[in-house]
Amino acid sequence: MKKMWRSLAIGGLALSVIAAAPAAIAKESGNAAANGKSQNLIVLIGDGMGPAQVSAARYYQQYEKGVQTLNLDPYYVGQATTYADRGEDGGTIVSGIVTDSASAGTAFATGHKTYNAGISVSNEDVSKPFASIIEAAEASGKSTGLVTTARITHATPAVYASHVRNRDNESAIAAQYLDSGVDVLFGGGKSFFVTKDEGGKRTDKNLLPEFEAKGYKIVESADNLEALTAKDSKALGLFGGSHVSYVPDRTEETPSLAEMTSKALEILSANQNGFAIMIEGGRIDHAGHANDLPTMVQEALDFDAAFKVAIDFAKKNGNTSVVVTADHETGGLSLSRDNIYEVNIDLWDKQKHSSEYLIGSLNEAKTIADVKKIVADNTWITDLSDEEAQLILDGDGSSYNREGGYNAVISKRLLIGWSGHGHSAVDVGVWAYGPIADKVSGQIDNTQIAMAGAEVLGLDLAKRTAELQSANLYPKFKINRANEVLYPAKALTEALGGTYKENGNTVTLSGKAAATITVDLAGGTATADGKAAGFTVDVDNGTLYLPLSAFSKLTGQNLKWDALSERILLK
Amino acid sequence: MKKMWRSLAIGGLALSVIAAAPAAIAKESGNAAANGKSQNLIVLIGDGMGPAQVSAARYYQQYEKGVQTLNLDPYYVGQATTYADRGEDGGTIVSGIVTDSASAGTAFATGHKTYNAGISVSNEDVSKPFASIIEAAEASGKSTGLVTTARITHATPAVYASHVRNRDNESAIAAQYLDSGVDVLFGGGKSFFVTKDEGGKRTDKNLLPEFEAKGYKIVESADNLEALTAKDSKALGLFGGSHVSYVPDRTEETPSLAEMTSKALEILSANQNGFAIMIEGGRIDHAGHANDLPTMVQEALDFDAAFKVAIDFAKKNGNTSVVVTADHETGGLSLSRDNIYEVNIDLWDKQKHSSEYLIGSLNEAKTIADVKKIVADNTWITDLSDEEAQLILDGDGSSYNREGGYNAVISKRLLIGWSGHGHSAVDVGVWAYGPIADKVSGQIDNTQIAMAGAEVLGLDLAKRTAELQSANLYPKFKINRANEVLYPAKALTEALGGTYKENGNTVTLSGKAAATITVDLAGGTATADGKAAGFTVDVDNGTLYLPLSAFSKLTGQNLKWDALSERILLK
Repeated sequence: MKKMWRSLAIGGLALSVIAAAPAAIAKESGNAAANGKSQNLIVLIGDGMGPAQVSAARYYQQYEKGVQTLNLDPYYVGQATTYADRGEDGGTIVSGIVTDSASAGTAFATGHKTYNAGISVSNEDVSKPFASIIEAAEASGKSTGLVTTARITHATPAVYASHVRNRDNESAIAAQYLDSGVDVLFGGGKSFFVTKDEGGKRTDKNLLPEFEAKGYKIVESADNLEALTAKDSKALGLFGGSHVSYVPDRTEETPSLAEMTSKALEILSANQNGFAIMIEGGRIDHAGHANDLPTMVQEALDFDAAFKVAIDFAKKNGNTSVVVTADHETGGLSLSRDNIYEVNIDLWDKQKHSSEYLIGSLNEAKTIADVKKIVADNTWITDLSDEEAQLILDGDGSSYNREGGYNAVISKRLLIGWSGHGHSAVDVGVWAYGPIADKVSGQIDNTQIAMAGAEVLGLDLAKRTAELQSANLYPKFKINRANEVLYPAKALTEALGGTYKENGNTVTLSGKAAATITVDLAGGTATADGKAAGFTVDVDNGTLYLPLSAFSKLTGQNLKWDALSERILLK
Repeated sequence: MKKMWRSLAIGGLALSVIAAAPAAIAKESGNAAANGKSQNLIVLIGDGMGPAQVSAARYYQQYEKGVQTLNLDPYYVGQATTYADRGEDGGTIVSGIVTDSASAGTAFATGHKTYNAGISVSNEDVSKPFASIIEAAEASGKSTGLVTTARITHATPAVYASHVRNRDNESAIAAQYLDSGVDVLFGGGKSFFVTKDEGGKRTDKNLLPEFEAKGYKIVESADNLEALTAKDSKALGLFGGSHVSYVPDRTEETPSLAEMTSKALEILSANQNGFAIMIEGGRIDHAGHANDLPTMVQEALDFDAAFKVAIDFAKKNGNTSVVVTADHETGGLSLSRDNIYEVNIDLWDKQKHSSEYLIGSLNEAKTIADVKKIVADNTWITDLSDEEAQLILDGDGSSYNREGGYNAVISKRLLIGWSGHGHSAVDVGVWAYGPIADKVSGQIDNTQIAMAGAEVLGLDLAKRTAELQSANLYPKFKINRANEVLYPAKALTEALGGTYKENGNTVTLSGKAAATITVDLAGGTATADGKAAGFTVDVDNGTLYLPLSAFSKLTGQNLKWDALSERILLK
């Protein structure tokens, strides 16, 4: 059963399974090495791919295929801290030690830390946008791409080409992609591009005709993806309403991450100015959240296969840097449990489908016998105990419910531990090739990934950030009963370069336009340059809120509210 | 409360907390770099210090002391696989994916994989010894040392200077140290040096006079350790009957690992031929096994402080390589749990003592009130619930019993997860300085640590191994009712270079001495060169066992049995 392990040891002599001096391989680079620059940059993110996830994928591959190393292995150069800013996380202020994908992505895409849920905006009451290396590359004339097995509007791709206060605003993210200039967008998430009438989630309009009008070729199957050529310089691939199906659940219609990667590189590399692309194995994380180890391993190997496409391209191209990391670990995975010095790796390939695929039938199950049949049909387990079946029927007490119970039972049999359904704060691996390798080696922080990417491509992130910040602000806001949008006056005044003074019940706001607004907090009235102002005054828990018209007066600018992206248009 | 996190982010700008280009630091080396050699080698092992343990220590230090990086951080160069050979583990054959300290230690001390529990012997029915870099260094005229916070006879130091089939044979390990030539031995474990009459565990004799007779100065307190000078070229420090006390439980009498390291380096560096030393943070592992996070963190920082002593020495010395790794992860530690994106790091410093220190009082507790008092006296918890107290009274169902229950309650409050009380198979970090750094960078196997150490010191491990193998064999054996030691005939004959032929009920053994032994399995009799042999014939589950006298006849050698070390003396 455990076929590979014996072969590793012959007469007590250990086979050195890893090629010697991998650091040398990582730093070996193409013809552009001399100046520390690359024309092209490929960033690969294994979402939720912590150290144990990588070890699990390697051990599985060794056991199952007799292949000793992952494609990634020879390029390991270091590890990265992943912490977020202290800030909001679902209404609670948290230390940020445990990051989410949004804040981690913001860090390695833009070089700035932010709070959990923030998509490339700063950790402030009135947030400012941070430019990503994809945005800076696009502005510099390079082609750009985002590829993922998650929804293309999910946090990790989103941080590279959109800005919102809350990652859940995926309709806005899709709309911002339209204006982003990003040339290749491959992933799932069609539902955030089409309206509810069309089976999607948008309440405004179908974005697909607008993408087509901008020259994007739209594909929705593996065949149509394959048929794209380098001449299709703009392409939007949507391979599912939500995320792309997990590896064990895919049909012929579903492209692999490697296939998406290959096509994206074919298209982007036609630009003589070079390109920058981010490729995400987005569902390593999802399987980790669900505690579905066999599927997690398949997703990690799907990602490793995409890395092979990328590294092969880079080596052939000779002018490309590749960097790989994870945003965080997911699930608190442990390769052992219950004080047993073994993992039952021979059982890791015995599931037909992901646990997600079984949710419908698990939810319909009425009896222990129903559960036993579902488990027997999908796994090697023909002897599920009544107790195990009941655990599944009862669910695991989390939002994963019966799927959680199912994976708890399976994981115990696999001798695999999880600490929950969330992320954890362990450092994550970094792999690299080409001139970027020296800049991300050793113990780094994840912000260093963005800095190093900008450096090898010769991009000015600060300049692109300044441009974005001159265009938009992302404030906290409230909507009153009259459906007016109101903004925190102190934070927004200061973000707009004005001053806010509070003296007793009188607040005085001064702005660039030399307009002065005075607010009587007690009376709830305001004057602008001495005259009664016609706008709402709202004091909520001691914080003054005013509508946008007040700030337009203050600045002399015609400020507009982009309700979809929940941002102020400064020009 | 969470004081450090806010300071990390100022106006959304991330502080890059890790120095740039640490890889360059790691490879920066002393004046001997040009030829890839070092005169001295310092190996540091963080026992049980997996990736999450390192992240935990760093986050704690940042929070508690405002110090952003561990001493180790700038020297991170890669990670190592830790798997053992498939083989025995407490009577069960396991895949070896999850290693113990013995097999992992054998790998990085000798360059060979073995089964769990094997101390630098091969994974065979008749095991052969493998030489460690310490043994090869000693043979080459260098001074050598072993330093640990565990018992000095525990697995990790043991693999460097002793050979036994089972790590539990610590009396043999202590005795073998006496003949090892190792100059400095600092740790706990006095009980394996003195007899039961003297409060120890030995059944044969007190070893301390013999160490003294060989010139070892024996010290048993921090003061006496400090008083040693470089002139005390041989020293045995025993700072406890069993392991050295955990950091939070130490008294003035207990040296820190840094103090032991400093003194060992002072002594060993007096040798003009150079030295090799292994320094272990041995109790990071123990706190992990117990699931005692606050103590685990203290032990990891104690280890990191010892690393600072080592790296400062190496930089000043200019002719020293340093390499650091872990043998495995312990506990399946996860920095988060229960789907909460937070760890309560502000509570990590709120324990007065380790959980081990409380075992006595926990075991004496009779009521919920007793438990609440113990917890309140040792922690910040004044509101322990009846349910929590009952969990502690009930124990956690493992051998850790009430201590396990106590740590389960504490860990839940700390928002820390564990998968059990055993080891796990995640890869572990590698840190290095000096000429060895390039040889252990990237993704490696732990055997590479030994190979690289031998290479930088110019040691011939294979030669020293051949010498050891010509002296001793380590067979499986059984003892019959007449107290005779019997050996598996086929395995031992072949290990001795003879041949074993089985034909029906007749077994023919031929050896170097041209003696032939014929055994009638059915009759249970044997002849040697045609004459009736006077030795016992034992057939057990189809395996023929014979006493040593049979093998002496076969080889013409006067083979002897070393009952303490359970090995055959070949000469």
